Amino acid sequence: MTSGRRSVEEHEQHVAALLDPLRKKSPLRVPLAHALHRTLTEDVESPLDLPPFRNSQMDGYAVRAGDLASTPADLPVQGVLAAGDTVAALEPGHALKIMTGAPVPDGADAVVPVEDTRATTPDSDGAGSVTVERSVTPGTYVREAGTDVRKGDLLLPAGTVLAARHIAALAAVGLTSIPVRARPRVAIISTGSELVTAGSELGPGQIFNSNGPALAASASANGADVVTIDHCHDDPEEFVTMLEHAVGVADVVFTSGGVSKGDFEVVKDTLAPRGGQFVSVAMQPGGPQGTAVVDGVPILTFPGNPVSALVSFEVFARPALRAAAGYPPVVCESLPLTEELTSIPGRRQFLRGRLDEKGVTPFRGHGSHLVAGLAAADVLLDIPADTTSLEAGDLVKVRIL
Amino acid sequence: MTSGRRSVEEHEQHVAALLDPLRKKSPLRVPLAHALHRTLTEDVESPLDLPPFRNSQMDGYAVRAGDLASTPADLPVQGVLAAGDTVAALEPGHALKIMTGAPVPDGADAVVPVEDTRATTPDSDGAGSVTVERSVTPGTYVREAGTDVRKGDLLLPAGTVLAARHIAALAAVGLTSIPVRARPRVAIISTGSELVTAGSELGPGQIFNSNGPALAASASANGADVVTIDHCHDDPEEFVTMLEHAVGVADVVFTSGGVSKGDFEVVKDTLAPRGGQFVSVAMQPGGPQGTAVVDGVPILTFPGNPVSALVSFEVFARPALRAAAGYPPVVCESLPLTEELTSIPGRRQFLRGRLDEKGVTPFRGHGSHLVAGLAAADVLLDIPADTTSLEAGDLVKVRIL
Repeated sequence: MTSGRRSVEEHEQHVAALLDPLRKKSPLRVPLAHALHRTLTEDVESPLDLPPFRNSQMDGYAVRAGDLASTPADLPVQGVLAAGDTVAALEPGHALKIMTGAPVPDGADAVVPVEDTRATTPDSDGAGSVTVERSVTPGTYVREAGTDVRKGDLLLPAGTVLAARHIAALAAVGLTSIPVRARPRVAIISTGSELVTAGSELGPGQIFNSNGPALAASASANGADVVTIDHCHDDPEEFVTMLEHAVGVADVVFTSGGVSKGDFEVVKDTLAPRGGQFVSVAMQPGGPQGTAVVDGVPILTFPGNPVSALVSFEVFARPALRAAAGYPPVVCESLPLTEELTSIPGRRQFLRGRLDEKGVTPFRGHGSHLVAGLAAADVLLDIPADTTSLEAGDLVKVRIL
Repeated sequence: MTSGRRSVEEHEQHVAALLDPLRKKSPLRVPLAHALHRTLTEDVESPLDLPPFRNSQMDGYAVRAGDLASTPADLPVQGVLAAGDTVAALEPGHALKIMTGAPVPDGADAVVPVEDTRATTPDSDGAGSVTVERSVTPGTYVREAGTDVRKGDLLLPAGTVLAARHIAALAAVGLTSIPVRARPRVAIISTGSELVTAGSELGPGQIFNSNGPALAASASANGADVVTIDHCHDDPEEFVTMLEHAVGVADVVFTSGGVSKGDFEVVKDTLAPRGGQFVSVAMQPGGPQGTAVVDGVPILTFPGNPVSALVSFEVFARPALRAAAGYPPVVCESLPLTEELTSIPGRRQFLRGRLDEKGVTPFRGHGSHLVAGLAAADVLLDIPADTTSLEAGDLVKVRIL
């Protein structure tokens, strides 16, 4: 089916609905070592108290605060407790040498830091006695069990995108694996008989295929696993074969090329008879867009010009992939223009530009084949369809690339 | 060697000098498919013109503009040029049906979009004649060779951190591999006899090892390759063995624990006699810090408390790793406090906090063992050593986590 002109917003909604199943894939369990930047699918409650036992916050001496009513006080040293040692009870009127993290023994209620003591025998065996210079209040430098987290407390909420500090917390409570969002599996098919893979010689009329590598990188950068990257000539039979493979291994397929008004539009010609929708979206670049579903797998068909393909990905695919991976939405900011610009009425324009402290400057020359200009851009200016001119200083919506 | 109290700034400079060799590793060539998020080490000039040949920007008809002095004009159609076809010369007074991207033939100087024509025979064979509705100026919808990039032009400067749009440009000019910064190889050794790896049962006095997984994730997230993660008991012989392995395979080693004032400080006891420097840095958390060089490999020794270890990484290791990977520096912002706070004089404090639209709110309870608080934080407030109190509304330096 081929239908008429669509607004960007209409096509965004259409694509979002089509790709919604990506958000609903079954979660995956991954080991903590592979969890960086993954998104938790469930609230994680702590399976234990943290710290799991009462322990010393300092290197020093475990004491009864009541034994230090007058200082300096000499206390016989009962022994040494290193971190990892098992706990012994503190005898009344004694001190136990204790290292940071070691269990505070029954009977002790405070730790005197080593700086506030003088040992009367060498530190290394800990026997003998210690002179404590200052009195302490009960609880001093004692970390009670569960003061960081209590067993059953919410440690991390579902939806957390895991950074190192979250992995620290998960490891600290002894978790080895966690449920995370499954990454969407993406297949990419770039079409065009003029395309040659880098590494070969260009023949007459040929250009290098940049959409395959660029769409693959775009998908990877937005939380997807790229499972296949194919290049197809303008040959419907070859395209059908690649498409059948793609829908067998991927959750979503992105194609480039073959959707315009030429005589050899392999994507449109193949998918339109299979229920694909090919529309002209009121945007520039990226007007010719298509969608289809083959064997239950959604397919987005982007135009073949490199800039059109990447802008299409940015506008339609990236939000859905990020939602599927559980990543925060693409951020748009309103920033001042450094110079005036004019825009075609009736088309939402996505202009390449540069950001500096003065604001955002669009590049001159909007050709959708200008990959060098796209590479030099750090923002995409998003000019509404009904805007025809803007002055320097006007605010424009900007997507940070 | 054990020396006295250092300012954070002094230790930052000391560490930056120690880790400077990481920035000077020989570059690596990687295939374009592995280039996402890598940093270019050289300017890349285009090896060819882009587009490589004069081609059509539209699906339509290649014409001589002079043949359309009066319109509508009927022109015999000489044939069809698809993208990838070799170029033929346009005969005077004729049109050649042409697809987007196909070479514009010699003799033609403009392309009339298909929308502005009526074919008098079916589109599919292209023979017969075409009626052109409107005249065109020479150059219309013709992309000249080299109008995107000229051979020898700078395509991407050294230092570019490669995103999808850069990969598009590199692929478009036919490059298959590029020179990028080599990632620093990182070894991690967490020490402490009380530590147990997740998956085991906790015995009395034991806690789970969180520093190993957390430091590994931190290093990975900042452009490093983690090549070994070891856990060492408080046993100098075991530590020496692990250290020898680590310096054999890594460019930098991070350790946690064993640097404080206890009796069993395995890291300090092993490295101090080998020229290590163990200092007290005027910061909280993270005061006890050490550095050493073993077999030419720099070693940073962080304290063992999980929050201290991660804050130490953030302050001292992260800037150096990012510089080595060619990533932009860590961004600090000045943001208003939502409530007053007090800070210990003489110590630079790194407080965990939350950011919202009103500003930044520090968490109460600063214990360096509070991994749950660190996990819930999204910023680190950086309070200068000479600041003792701040009011609500005061600006504080904030590192975004």
